[in-house]
Amino acid sequence: MTETELIAHLKPLLPTNDFVVNGAGDDCAVLELGSPDTQTLFKTDAVVEGIHFTADTEPERVGRKALARCLSDIAAMGGTPTAGVVTLGLPRGFEPERIKAMYRGLNRLAAQHQVAVVGGETTTTPGTWLINVALLGTVPRGRALLRSAAKPGDALFVSGDLGGSIAGKHLDFEPRLSEGRWLLECAGIGAVMDLSDGLASDLPKLLAASGVSGAELHKSAVPISREARERGRTGDLAKPPFVAAVTDGEDFELLFTVRPGHSVRVLDEWKARFPSVRLSCIGKLTDGAGILVRDGGRVQPLPPHGYEHFA
Amino acid sequence: MTETELIAHLKPLLPTNDFVVNGAGDDCAVLELGSPDTQTLFKTDAVVEGIHFTADTEPERVGRKALARCLSDIAAMGGTPTAGVVTLGLPRGFEPERIKAMYRGLNRLAAQHQVAVVGGETTTTPGTWLINVALLGTVPRGRALLRSAAKPGDALFVSGDLGGSIAGKHLDFEPRLSEGRWLLECAGIGAVMDLSDGLASDLPKLLAASGVSGAELHKSAVPISREARERGRTGDLAKPPFVAAVTDGEDFELLFTVRPGHSVRVLDEWKARFPSVRLSCIGKLTDGAGILVRDGGRVQPLPPHGYEHFA
Repeated sequence: MTETELIAHLKPLLPTNDFVVNGAGDDCAVLELGSPDTQTLFKTDAVVEGIHFTADTEPERVGRKALARCLSDIAAMGGTPTAGVVTLGLPRGFEPERIKAMYRGLNRLAAQHQVAVVGGETTTTPGTWLINVALLGTVPRGRALLRSAAKPGDALFVSGDLGGSIAGKHLDFEPRLSEGRWLLECAGIGAVMDLSDGLASDLPKLLAASGVSGAELHKSAVPISREARERGRTGDLAKPPFVAAVTDGEDFELLFTVRPGHSVRVLDEWKARFPSVRLSCIGKLTDGAGILVRDGGRVQPLPPHGYEHFA
Repeated sequence: MTETELIAHLKPLLPTNDFVVNGAGDDCAVLELGSPDTQTLFKTDAVVEGIHFTADTEPERVGRKALARCLSDIAAMGGTPTAGVVTLGLPRGFEPERIKAMYRGLNRLAAQHQVAVVGGETTTTPGTWLINVALLGTVPRGRALLRSAAKPGDALFVSGDLGGSIAGKHLDFEPRLSEGRWLLECAGIGAVMDLSDGLASDLPKLLAASGVSGAELHKSAVPISREARERGRTGDLAKPPFVAAVTDGEDFELLFTVRPGHSVRVLDEWKARFPSVRLSCIGKLTDGAGILVRDGGRVQPLPPHGYEHFA
């Protein structure tokens, strides 16, 4: 049983109530908590030593990453983050100086985005250091950007460059909060999500959420990071750069769709607004079966080997 | 550096903003998210294998406990829980059947309290199973029950029986949600908190939060559970029952103070409303120094050895 199959089994069993506008399955849940103008976004996420960072990673960067991952999910809904709570799991004997450093990194990023940190639980673990952040955000009523809003014929866009995040970006990336809020105001936007497990793993989730059967990518249009290219040339773990770009994961870029006829304007306006963040149109959604990659005259299926937990 | 000292260092450094009514330091944070009538409660908490449950604990009870602990914190604010998100950290190769069972236990308790589960992240850990729950609740505007509201002269009350929770109650306790909401409506209530680390550890937190210097407990009035008495008689880990009652931890009972002149009415009304839950008046707050235990004619300081993380 894969993680995807397990989630498909568990999701319909989760209890719901009248506070829920959108439950599990998107980057954040959307809740109705009594405000006349806004809805509340809700997200939880953990980083674990040995998986998301190593024993050598500076604790400041670990704390920063723990929050930044959640901020990226708020960004993908077009939201503004408001308040977070932190659970620290620490082995016995963990040095207080490292905890302080972790909070320094987390607090600095929180302050930069006007996020309040309103709770910090600490628990003991038998040997692994981990941080869980749960984060709230706010979004204008009924306007949250959903991954379920794509349609066949939409163009497919991605911000930034993909792949090679392990070289450092996975710790130091800038969550695309301004870009997400801008998409919320922009005409012609379809579905939006953040790329956390890699395009080859995340695009199928967007398609499934939207009930769209296929997509066609232009291989040469996929923005490959310098790191993915360099790692493709050297080292034991070399992957072809395109494969790295679509499977490495932890890109924390925005993947979104644009209705037919809106692409050129969206590209132009993005360039004017965010000149330092590349925006690429990498293909379109189709009513065909599965994801195809067009490379010159050749067409091949995209191998779905992004990061799968327990794989 | 103890956990308490570390928290005292970290708390003033946490960023805040206009959404925050009460930040870190109480059972839940209190937020202002735009609703004219209500405020939002926010809490995070984790249970970890080897600390809060064992490899043998039925996964249903683990899932239940993970949520129940957060519900107990909402109860201590007089709130009503609304929606939660779950982070599951699992070692590779963890059986899907155990995950399903964990969610069965968690979902059942959530449904019982009309709590929606709106997100379920899964992450890999290098060997330990853990569950983090972040929970939202709602409380009438400006009415949340705080641990900072005690005054010298208040009587001190505790619900239920204390100690010996490890015999089973730590997994199967009923969060005191109805009782908490009742306290919110009740005249003469001072400070409220839930007992998670044991009275000897938690009462000092209530005093510190309220700026009250002392308390006097009547030893014979402290309600000692049957399990704490039995464990006091047998086994290698035998503690005197009173010591077990005040130091075992994981009682998940409500500790609260009552203004002078209100105690008898509160006791009478509680008995009528919650006939199956014992309520005990165990002493009073003073402007003396520290916590004293009165045992017949003897008076002794309460040893502050509840559960301290990293101790």
